[in-house]
Amino acid sequence: MPSTPENQHSSRDRFKYDQVSHYIMDLIDKGTLKPGDRVPSLRKLSKSLKVSIATVNQAYLTLEEKGVLKAKPQSGFYVHTGINREIATPKPIISTCQPRKVRFGQLFEEIFEISNDASIAPFAAARPSMELMPSKALMRETRSVIARHAQESMDYCFPPGHERLRHQISLRYAELGLSIAAEEIIITSGATEALSLALQTVARRGDIIAVESPTYFSVLRLIEKMGMLALEIDSDPLTGVSLDALEFALDTMDISAMLVVPNFNNPSGSLMPSSHKRQLVSMLSERNIPLIEDDVYGDLYFGNERPDICKCHDEQGLVLSASSFSKTLAPGFRTGWITGGRFHEQLLEWKQATSSASPSLQQLAVGEFLRSGQYDRHLVRLRKAFKAQVEKARFMIARLFPEGTRISDPQGGFVLWVELPRGINCFDVYTEALQHHIGITPGMLFSATRKFRNYIRINCGFPWTPENEQALEQLAGIINRLNA
Amino acid sequence: MPSTPENQHSSRDRFKYDQVSHYIMDLIDKGTLKPGDRVPSLRKLSKSLKVSIATVNQAYLTLEEKGVLKAKPQSGFYVHTGINREIATPKPIISTCQPRKVRFGQLFEEIFEISNDASIAPFAAARPSMELMPSKALMRETRSVIARHAQESMDYCFPPGHERLRHQISLRYAELGLSIAAEEIIITSGATEALSLALQTVARRGDIIAVESPTYFSVLRLIEKMGMLALEIDSDPLTGVSLDALEFALDTMDISAMLVVPNFNNPSGSLMPSSHKRQLVSMLSERNIPLIEDDVYGDLYFGNERPDICKCHDEQGLVLSASSFSKTLAPGFRTGWITGGRFHEQLLEWKQATSSASPSLQQLAVGEFLRSGQYDRHLVRLRKAFKAQVEKARFMIARLFPEGTRISDPQGGFVLWVELPRGINCFDVYTEALQHHIGITPGMLFSATRKFRNYIRINCGFPWTPENEQALEQLAGIINRLNA
Repeated sequence: MPSTPENQHSSRDRFKYDQVSHYIMDLIDKGTLKPGDRVPSLRKLSKSLKVSIATVNQAYLTLEEKGVLKAKPQSGFYVHTGINREIATPKPIISTCQPRKVRFGQLFEEIFEISNDASIAPFAAARPSMELMPSKALMRETRSVIARHAQESMDYCFPPGHERLRHQISLRYAELGLSIAAEEIIITSGATEALSLALQTVARRGDIIAVESPTYFSVLRLIEKMGMLALEIDSDPLTGVSLDALEFALDTMDISAMLVVPNFNNPSGSLMPSSHKRQLVSMLSERNIPLIEDDVYGDLYFGNERPDICKCHDEQGLVLSASSFSKTLAPGFRTGWITGGRFHEQLLEWKQATSSASPSLQQLAVGEFLRSGQYDRHLVRLRKAFKAQVEKARFMIARLFPEGTRISDPQGGFVLWVELPRGINCFDVYTEALQHHIGITPGMLFSATRKFRNYIRINCGFPWTPENEQALEQLAGIINRLNA
Repeated sequence: MPSTPENQHSSRDRFKYDQVSHYIMDLIDKGTLKPGDRVPSLRKLSKSLKVSIATVNQAYLTLEEKGVLKAKPQSGFYVHTGINREIATPKPIISTCQPRKVRFGQLFEEIFEISNDASIAPFAAARPSMELMPSKALMRETRSVIARHAQESMDYCFPPGHERLRHQISLRYAELGLSIAAEEIIITSGATEALSLALQTVARRGDIIAVESPTYFSVLRLIEKMGMLALEIDSDPLTGVSLDALEFALDTMDISAMLVVPNFNNPSGSLMPSSHKRQLVSMLSERNIPLIEDDVYGDLYFGNERPDICKCHDEQGLVLSASSFSKTLAPGFRTGWITGGRFHEQLLEWKQATSSASPSLQQLAVGEFLRSGQYDRHLVRLRKAFKAQVEKARFMIARLFPEGTRISDPQGGFVLWVELPRGINCFDVYTEALQHHIGITPGMLFSATRKFRNYIRINCGFPWTPENEQALEQLAGIINRLNA
């Protein structure tokens, strides 16, 4: 495992170390330092930034590990020539706007099977590494809940779910400036069940559901299973769904509901600006169309501020807002929730009818983990880790993948959306990679209309071990061969 | 709390004590001892059964607590005059056979709310008392799983779920003479989710689902929410669904699937004889109609042998068999499963799409609890407790409720189905009882066709504390007033 500066420096040193890294990254981003350029010597930068030579050296070594710099013996550090172009982000795709039946084969199942298999490099499912999760602290909390509330941990807690957890969630909404009472929240089995309940509540077989494009494939599958039609609305890789394209669709089609991942969309990484969210809610509300939003990545922002959610702009109770702790705390706890505005009662009926109570133990443990402040402290560390992992992956891909590759630049979350040169078929990449025990997700899964043929999604939810780095290099080799 | 003989006697004494109780109950059942009769003196019975006087005395005192006997000072024990008639079981209801849209209001939600409220006497939801559950042992197992597999406990375990648990379940099927591989089992969030997945797999909005009558109201609600039609097939209070009535329905209507609770049906307590199960499967298979069975009460038999299930007679893979540990081990663990025969792949897709993984921790803990043999040892105690609780409730109801009351005589499970005199409306009973902080379930919920107007269901899943006895007496008072 690459040594991380966090282990080796005091917090004061870490600040200085960050300063050096950011300084160099900034110079590269601005084009001041170009591939092949020699970066400032240790001595010079030590002087100009007023930090020790050791700190600069450590920062440079870590940038080397990330693939940004390259050390030459007796000569110093250079910007890696692998970065022989700007890292381009994927192009927006404009497509004809037609609602489609979603149809996929067994590939969905296979993606999850791959993800259950520890021998396969973990770039396939969007899952965080358990090494980054606070297993010990959360399990300490869970054991404590068991000791104090053994019977309650084992007994039914019928929907809407445990009050203490719902209260903690309502406090988090309050931090977003949203007044959602605990009574308006329903605990679910992950965000997946929340979205399922929401779709069942607002639409029926044959109805048209507007979605972003690309859209998380499990959402498309859910729409497929329910016999609804997915209408893919063109979306910008940076700002999410195109409101113009949506306006056109709303004017010409009978849309029953819309479903979006406004913050750090999976796979594109797009982040809808707050003004877009407001406008989106207003456009749909005017037409009395419910909006389902999935905010599972919202807490994983790389910037300084947590983005808001569509629900913040909801004046008519038409936004059904779902999320979970699966990407941030404990995937296997399956603790999610939804707040459904005017659809609350119907959601509650669906929850009661289709799965009844959610497990009590996890609700109690997560509630306590939030209350004690441990969750927020964990998030600070987690965001930093994901940001570094995603950044490193971007640089490695930029260096290793063929000319013409474009890579998303997400401001949160932990997946990358990679546009390969046009001639490459994502299924070929998928198949060959799997033969080498490497998992990726083919881009075509993220559309019902066979778009994204030359795209793949790369999960970066794990620390970059030498094994995973090697797997990414192998993957690059496969893609380069396919490109030849 | 009434003292239970288990606390006071060695196992040898307990055997003798049981012998005495059975002897007296037998004499009452056969009509040898009638209400008001003096039962054999302590001395005489001690001699004839070759047990100590103390043992006979203890058995008599416990029968008194159960409401069977009544002590008269200086005179001895008498058969309680409250038992002034044979306890009649509910009559079979014959009805016109029409598929119906199921429609219920908020009453469903209320039943569950009541059940979350500890201040309300627990006769409403069919839930076992946590006092009867092996909280300590299961929580010890859970803590041990956490200690040994912290990360695994928190990480995703995608469908079909954890292999070790599925293996244990397949071993239980093997004991029933059924060869179901672990690969054919899908872990679900309780049996409720299993039934929901099954219905979604085999039927669609508008389709006709044949059910028993009465049917567990959550099943009716599920059918309602999914826009399917419930066709209620007349059922015998003892042997379950009428195969003649079903044959007629199959010949005249386009039925998409059937759903049954073959063992200790909730609420009627009926147990389908094995020959009926075989015939049912064969009748449906001939017509290529899938059968969904819910066996959550199957392990709670009062007799000597576990009843078989419909799946045992399934030659064509048309039976989808669901169950859970919610009624026998840990309601709040939400650990259920389904084995779907030829529908396995579709079930798996629905599970993956609508809720994805089930929580890992409970799967690991329950798997270990089964493997270690603790579950089976617990079941022995649990069956005995439920049998005694149900028996006592029957006698109390027979003694306290108005003339004309008929009570089910279930051979397993823990609910009673009570037919009140015709003039009494179950909703009046429900409303008045609730005002006195007593929960019951109105019979009309168990039908989509407004049958069972004068029926109520009584949950007996808890030990008979003085408070609960008093609540039952109060309930009897209410019903007697309504009957006046």
